[in-house]
Amino acid sequence: MVTMQDALLALNAYWTERGCLTAQPMNSEVGAGTLNPATFLRVQGPEPWRVAYTEPSVRPDDSRYGENPNRLQTHTQYQVILKPEPGDAQELYLGSLKALGIDTAAHDIRFVEDNWASPALGAWGLGWEVWLDGLEITQFTYFQQAGGIALDPVSVEITYGIERILMALQGVGHFKDIAYADGISYGEIFGQAEYEMSRYYLDDADIEANRTLFETYAGEARRMLAARLPVPAYSYVLKCSHTFNVLDARGAISTTERARAFARMRRLAHEAAQLWAERRTELGHPLGLVQAPEAPELRPEAVDEVDGPQTLIFEIGVEELPAAEVGRSAEAVRAALETLLAGTRLRTTGLYVKATPRRIVAMLGGVEPYEDDREETARGPRVAAAYDEQGQPTAAARGFARGQGLDVADLGRARYGAHEHVTATRRVTGRPAATVLAELLPQIVTGLRAEKNMRWQAAGLSFSRPVRWLLALLGDDVVPFTAGNLASGRTTYLHRTAAQPAVDVATAYEYWAFLAEHGVIADGGTRRRLVARHAVALAERAGGTVDTTAEAALVEEIADLVEYPTAILGSFEPRYLELPAAVLTTVMRKHQRYLPVQDAGGALLPHFVVIANGECDHDLVRAGNEAVLRARYEDAAFFWRADLETPLDAMKQRLHLLTFEERLGSMADRADRIAAVARRLSGAVELSGEERSTLERAAQLAKFDLGSQMVTELSSLAGVMARAYALRAGEPEPVAQALHETELPRSAADAVPDSLPGALLALADRFDLLAGLFALGSAPTGSSDPYGLRRAALGVVAILRRHPRLAGLTVADGLAAAAAEQPVAVSAEVRAEAELFVRRRLEQLLLERGHAVDHVRAVLPVAASPARAEKLLAELEKLAGTEEFAQVAAAVQRVRRIVPAGTPAGYDLTLFADPAEEAVHHELQRTRGALADTTGPARFTAEAQRLTAAVNRFFDEVLVMAEDPAVRANRLGLLASVQALADPVLRWEQL
Amino acid sequence: MVTMQDALLALNAYWTERGCLTAQPMNSEVGAGTLNPATFLRVQGPEPWRVAYTEPSVRPDDSRYGENPNRLQTHTQYQVILKPEPGDAQELYLGSLKALGIDTAAHDIRFVEDNWASPALGAWGLGWEVWLDGLEITQFTYFQQAGGIALDPVSVEITYGIERILMALQGVGHFKDIAYADGISYGEIFGQAEYEMSRYYLDDADIEANRTLFETYAGEARRMLAARLPVPAYSYVLKCSHTFNVLDARGAISTTERARAFARMRRLAHEAAQLWAERRTELGHPLGLVQAPEAPELRPEAVDEVDGPQTLIFEIGVEELPAAEVGRSAEAVRAALETLLAGTRLRTTGLYVKATPRRIVAMLGGVEPYEDDREETARGPRVAAAYDEQGQPTAAARGFARGQGLDVADLGRARYGAHEHVTATRRVTGRPAATVLAELLPQIVTGLRAEKNMRWQAAGLSFSRPVRWLLALLGDDVVPFTAGNLASGRTTYLHRTAAQPAVDVATAYEYWAFLAEHGVIADGGTRRRLVARHAVALAERAGGTVDTTAEAALVEEIADLVEYPTAILGSFEPRYLELPAAVLTTVMRKHQRYLPVQDAGGALLPHFVVIANGECDHDLVRAGNEAVLRARYEDAAFFWRADLETPLDAMKQRLHLLTFEERLGSMADRADRIAAVARRLSGAVELSGEERSTLERAAQLAKFDLGSQMVTELSSLAGVMARAYALRAGEPEPVAQALHETELPRSAADAVPDSLPGALLALADRFDLLAGLFALGSAPTGSSDPYGLRRAALGVVAILRRHPRLAGLTVADGLAAAAAEQPVAVSAEVRAEAELFVRRRLEQLLLERGHAVDHVRAVLPVAASPARAEKLLAELEKLAGTEEFAQVAAAVQRVRRIVPAGTPAGYDLTLFADPAEEAVHHELQRTRGALADTTGPARFTAEAQRLTAAVNRFFDEVLVMAEDPAVRANRLGLLASVQALADPVLRWEQL
Repeated sequence: MVTMQDALLALNAYWTERGCLTAQPMNSEVGAGTLNPATFLRVQGPEPWRVAYTEPSVRPDDSRYGENPNRLQTHTQYQVILKPEPGDAQELYLGSLKALGIDTAAHDIRFVEDNWASPALGAWGLGWEVWLDGLEITQFTYFQQAGGIALDPVSVEITYGIERILMALQGVGHFKDIAYADGISYGEIFGQAEYEMSRYYLDDADIEANRTLFETYAGEARRMLAARLPVPAYSYVLKCSHTFNVLDARGAISTTERARAFARMRRLAHEAAQLWAERRTELGHPLGLVQAPEAPELRPEAVDEVDGPQTLIFEIGVEELPAAEVGRSAEAVRAALETLLAGTRLRTTGLYVKATPRRIVAMLGGVEPYEDDREETARGPRVAAAYDEQGQPTAAARGFARGQGLDVADLGRARYGAHEHVTATRRVTGRPAATVLAELLPQIVTGLRAEKNMRWQAAGLSFSRPVRWLLALLGDDVVPFTAGNLASGRTTYLHRTAAQPAVDVATAYEYWAFLAEHGVIADGGTRRRLVARHAVALAERAGGTVDTTAEAALVEEIADLVEYPTAILGSFEPRYLELPAAVLTTVMRKHQRYLPVQDAGGALLPHFVVIANGECDHDLVRAGNEAVLRARYEDAAFFWRADLETPLDAMKQRLHLLTFEERLGSMADRADRIAAVARRLSGAVELSGEERSTLERAAQLAKFDLGSQMVTELSSLAGVMARAYALRAGEPEPVAQALHETELPRSAADAVPDSLPGALLALADRFDLLAGLFALGSAPTGSSDPYGLRRAALGVVAILRRHPRLAGLTVADGLAAAAAEQPVAVSAEVRAEAELFVRRRLEQLLLERGHAVDHVRAVLPVAASPARAEKLLAELEKLAGTEEFAQVAAAVQRVRRIVPAGTPAGYDLTLFADPAEEAVHHELQRTRGALADTTGPARFTAEAQRLTAAVNRFFDEVLVMAEDPAVRANRLGLLASVQALADPVLRWEQL
Repeated sequence: MVTMQDALLALNAYWTERGCLTAQPMNSEVGAGTLNPATFLRVQGPEPWRVAYTEPSVRPDDSRYGENPNRLQTHTQYQVILKPEPGDAQELYLGSLKALGIDTAAHDIRFVEDNWASPALGAWGLGWEVWLDGLEITQFTYFQQAGGIALDPVSVEITYGIERILMALQGVGHFKDIAYADGISYGEIFGQAEYEMSRYYLDDADIEANRTLFETYAGEARRMLAARLPVPAYSYVLKCSHTFNVLDARGAISTTERARAFARMRRLAHEAAQLWAERRTELGHPLGLVQAPEAPELRPEAVDEVDGPQTLIFEIGVEELPAAEVGRSAEAVRAALETLLAGTRLRTTGLYVKATPRRIVAMLGGVEPYEDDREETARGPRVAAAYDEQGQPTAAARGFARGQGLDVADLGRARYGAHEHVTATRRVTGRPAATVLAELLPQIVTGLRAEKNMRWQAAGLSFSRPVRWLLALLGDDVVPFTAGNLASGRTTYLHRTAAQPAVDVATAYEYWAFLAEHGVIADGGTRRRLVARHAVALAERAGGTVDTTAEAALVEEIADLVEYPTAILGSFEPRYLELPAAVLTTVMRKHQRYLPVQDAGGALLPHFVVIANGECDHDLVRAGNEAVLRARYEDAAFFWRADLETPLDAMKQRLHLLTFEERLGSMADRADRIAAVARRLSGAVELSGEERSTLERAAQLAKFDLGSQMVTELSSLAGVMARAYALRAGEPEPVAQALHETELPRSAADAVPDSLPGALLALADRFDLLAGLFALGSAPTGSSDPYGLRRAALGVVAILRRHPRLAGLTVADGLAAAAAEQPVAVSAEVRAEAELFVRRRLEQLLLERGHAVDHVRAVLPVAASPARAEKLLAELEKLAGTEEFAQVAAAVQRVRRIVPAGTPAGYDLTLFADPAEEAVHHELQRTRGALADTTGPARFTAEAQRLTAAVNRFFDEVLVMAEDPAVRANRLGLLASVQALADPVLRWEQL
């Protein structure tokens, strides 16, 4: 058996042989190997660097007193940096697993999208978590930025989670049982420290002392930057970071404090990194410069002459794409190829594009050997100047013909504008297909773009993941071109575990068969069907089924995680079924991408289907995945049991320990405010007695489950767990439901509260958030929205739209109610700002649903609530285009144009000089009397027909701008009165 | 070539194979691998533990901006802990050197006494520094105490200095040139950090910030101890320690602060260690308990009958003894053997005891095969009771005879006290020699003791270093016994590098020849002669000589560092001769134990003699030693040149940066005070004009060389360098001399200032120290004397004794002069206390010189200066025993006895009632008139003869205690007047 010590020695030996330095761990607490300056600073700048080291990584927040089998306050990372990325880092990595004694062909090893980012460090990269039979064992990242600086060259970072790997290798279920060395276990060595440091981080660290440390460290870092010493400066940034983590684990950091501290650390880290790079430049880059990758070399092959249409296979080989990019990339390649082909005269008969995580393949059928020929005509001198009076060509004509390489007799004529010119027409022969394609295909490669793109050691290329090979066969022949650091060829790459992973393809016609033969299914639809079919078949064996319709999104994701779906049925102990289904399925779907197996009634069975990639040892892979799920369920069951032993009030009490926001108090304060705001809002709604008592009890318990261990761990279960725990604690179903609904909707697509008590609590939650944060000036800016205020505003809109009984509740009322409960002052301006913010979300929503922008903007400002806005919008859309409305609108617009802003409404009857004035006055009175305050445009249009006529007559017969100033003012006052009647109905100027 | 990376991997592999865990470095800055809890905590308690790890060790004080070839702020230690010590740790260690590719037979590898102690950790142990051709590459320690707690079992700690080893292995002269891994050097990896962290530690670290850190860490450590969490507590102790080192490197720590901080850290470390041990006990010692060493097994051999005297060889094999213990141990064994033999009746003809660092050998010649026989007589009943009236034996006599196994007829008679008893006399046969010796020899082993003793895994044994084997041969046969964990046998151990290090000795008669044949010279005298002879011979080859007389102490030490002195002549570049000879020889003698080579005139030649141990590759060993000396001289030359470029005033300015004592200011303040005090003292002395100007200039420069780099590095050269630099700077010879003398005497045996300016400065230096520190209450306690106040007081005494021209200067005057210059108040009480302290040193000195304690104590309190004290003492010693003095002393004592303490001197003549009173009055007046204030006892005795007679008459004729109180008081006043006259002369009560 490989001990942990053996494993670390084996990795050292493996990576040392591959040119890595073995460095030492940082002699300061760090949360990850990335923070070690051997990574963070060394990835900066143009010097090469290869390093490997063990890094005991301290995560105070992961402290569990050594009790949790999988979570430790200090876990061991093994970190490798390859700078520049060598082009075959994945293969090198797989080699290291073999060096650890892992049979990579028997296991299911996958590279699953995971894009790493550290906001505190201003660092990010694209890459994967590596799965060993479903267990995340390694983080693999192409480092794009560190310290807020784009990295060039790009480094590969490989971070092994040593405890997880060893637990899997040794088949033990608790980290303490890992054999660390012969005869001594991990627990024997580190158990006491795990317990004691957990005590420190969770319970005993002095908050004031750690705040002092943080400030002192930050001060020294700042001073060292000023002294141009990046090394000590950065070492103090690391100390800041650890101390921040300690404070965070102690629950002493509010959301705003977090944002502030992150910004501060990011700034310091950025300056340290920048200074480091500057200093290295000043020192003349002692380690030399990374050499630019060699220019790709085309190896021309002898090409046979062809005379009929051929097939093109163009395969872009990539490192594992994120599932979401697989189909999207195929579409993009198809579109690009179509566009580019349209710019040529090459005729083809069909284009198919398919993709897997590792390849995007375009097949172009019936490619003619040559482009069509075409004629080119050049314009010469005017005919009048080209021929003399005798009709003989002039010197000008002769010169033109000579220039075009024609005999003067072959010149033609054509009219250009008003004049006829001589012309020279030549036939241009079409280029060979290979030439056309060699020009066109590299543009496809350089044009590849994904949602998130990265750079690697290939000038000019940028994509979701590195492109590693290009196969381009036109019939039997390579279409020769280069793109970035790659030359096209006939080599394709099969599964990495294949006996011979790289193989040459003889001809385009054999390509598909060849792939299929080697277990690569290029067609995404086929993979999805296979996943669904095999999953259902396996589930049936276990007496259940997989609801592939409900799981369509998951099936699609799974199908794009593999090249050859291999379904394996796994099981878990039925005792875990005591856990709420949402817990079990959340873990299966989100964390593991397993398909849950249900019985006919939709109840969960203790089985799951995992889709492995390609051939593997099913028993081994099953066992591995079952162990992973067991560990996750064991965690969840631990939380579940612990929570069930905790009275709801006790959980609620824990909210006092969770800081929400420094100035807005704890989460308990927030929960109290939500209760109070909900009570206030309920005043505007008719509630039944039962609804009222449900609301009251739910308000008392609001958000209690944030104090549960399960939600602390799986925050997406907030609300779900509230419901489950409330029911277990004997609360009435409606109360449990309202508690669940308080968290709804969690996203745009999510359900909206059904019950009125739930709706009121959910609204109170969101109004509290908006009022409080806007009062602190924390409105979202750009893409930064740490408190999710956009989501909150959309939630307000969705709830108000959903409940007709809430029609009487305006956003302004809601914000006012929340404002009244805040511990900080919320001015009228702030409330208006928040209201506008909600209205903008509604506007966006309505526009997305296809309403015309002028209509939306015309109704929104006059609608106090979303329901009202939609009602007005519906009226307006019905009215728009009718003659009646057009007339009313025209009259209102005419009035608005002539009345200066700020003109007071009102007039003096005695100053009337014209019956038309009288008529307007009369109709004004009548119309005003017929309308309610909240009249919509339909009613207004109907009632204002006679007023419209009067206004039109007034304009026809009366000179508004009379010479007598008193008369003039009186007439403007009269029109202002008309405007005052119309303005609350719509924003007419938007129409 | 072995790269540094290879070396670390090789050590990991080597020690892992030998059952060590490989741990990670501490993730907090530590000054040494010892501080890592994997050492400091794990050596506590009874659990076994074997660990090996790399430890980047941070020593802020060693920061040199990466410029010094041998000194780094972070150097790399490789640390091994073997708990319990396995008995063969030295052999294991040598194996690890082989694993590093070191040919241990070709090199000169030695274990040279070096006892490790860390006051900040309350830790110490005995052991060695390991020398590779003169280069210290490893610290090897038997850990005796950590955290102030005695360790049981004892651990072995092996700490490799990796950079030094690699520099030697790779033959490079600067750490930056070490090949760290293929194609990358140490400097390329760590150079920038060396520079920048040096900047931080030496120049830029904020002192207030670091003080804040220290206090915060100490506070958290204290709190965690209260929470019974030793792991986090200890981690904060480490942070304290590092921060303290940072402050120290910044020159922000005064001597008192240092002592306080050390005490605080020691206390915290102690409590953490104790708490750790307690917690491990509470946890039931999860790693189990160290097994007690196996009881030694005697393997009895068949013994031939012998009939003549034999020779005993008794060899105690030890790990390398300190040089000073070699001869001392031989003497101790000789004495013990003599004493023990005296308690037996075994006859022998001669005892020789010889010793090397690895063995103490006793040879006992002419050991008779048996002890002499003897008679034993038992006392029976009284004769009166033994025989009846008929002379027949009674039942009592018969019973006694039976009990003694005799026939009643064989009983004898003997007188015991007043009575005659029957006796039974038996002849007791002497035991065989082997039996006697088997009882006696183990007592030698268990009785071994040295100056400093250690424990190891052997119950009942305690010695300077572990005893590892016992050879005891009486003729051909083993004398069978056990001691501790050892059994006697016939195996001896030769050089560790011998082809077969452990060999059996057939017979005691061959032992010496056998040893000699294998290159072990047991006789210390022989080794010394060889060292001297070979050194001189080699020096002659280089055209010089070695002054073996002057170097006698060094020769003796060297001879006791080896078992077979192998002299090798080494050279250094003549350019180093520009350095002062004291610098060169200090390095050679103190640091390297090389013998300097001089020419006929006593001038240094660029050669040295190193004495290696046993056979080795001379060229290799020479080259190694030369490289070591070159590195040391390169350092010194660097300092020398840098210092020479620095004006004396600039060096003096640096004293402002050296804190002397928080409240007593910087070293510059102290130097200023010394100058001022010297000027004050000079007022009491007649000085020539030249002396006066010398004093003035020297006072201005006082202590400037403490600001030189050389003295910063080699502090024992203070004064020596002052002289050298002053001369180079053009100062007059007397000024340079006075500056040198300011530092004298540095020890009891050292020279005392010759010149008066030098003497005054040296006195001022010491009075300043005494006045200042006593004012702060920092008088020495117990063995703690951090400021060397005892040495200072002895210096005062020595200087004052040496200079008759200083006779007018009292200690009180000196202290008063110094007190006047202190920045703190120095009360009269404090001055008196300091004066008493000096007097006690003088008392001790005088007693050590053989003066009688009563004489010393009689003169010291009345002598204002040491010279005066010695004058008085001489007088007193001459007087003592004379009749005159006896009478005077008796009279004075009689007066002192009768006069109550506090009785005022003085009397009223009118109250005299007796002529005897008149007589006393008369003689009193006369004597008083005849005496000066400073009269010594000789003059006093001479002058007081008649007063004595008068006093005696007074006592004969007058009743002091007259009934009339007035008369009585008057008579006591008269006697008090006599006492007042006598008291300043001597402390009569001491006689």
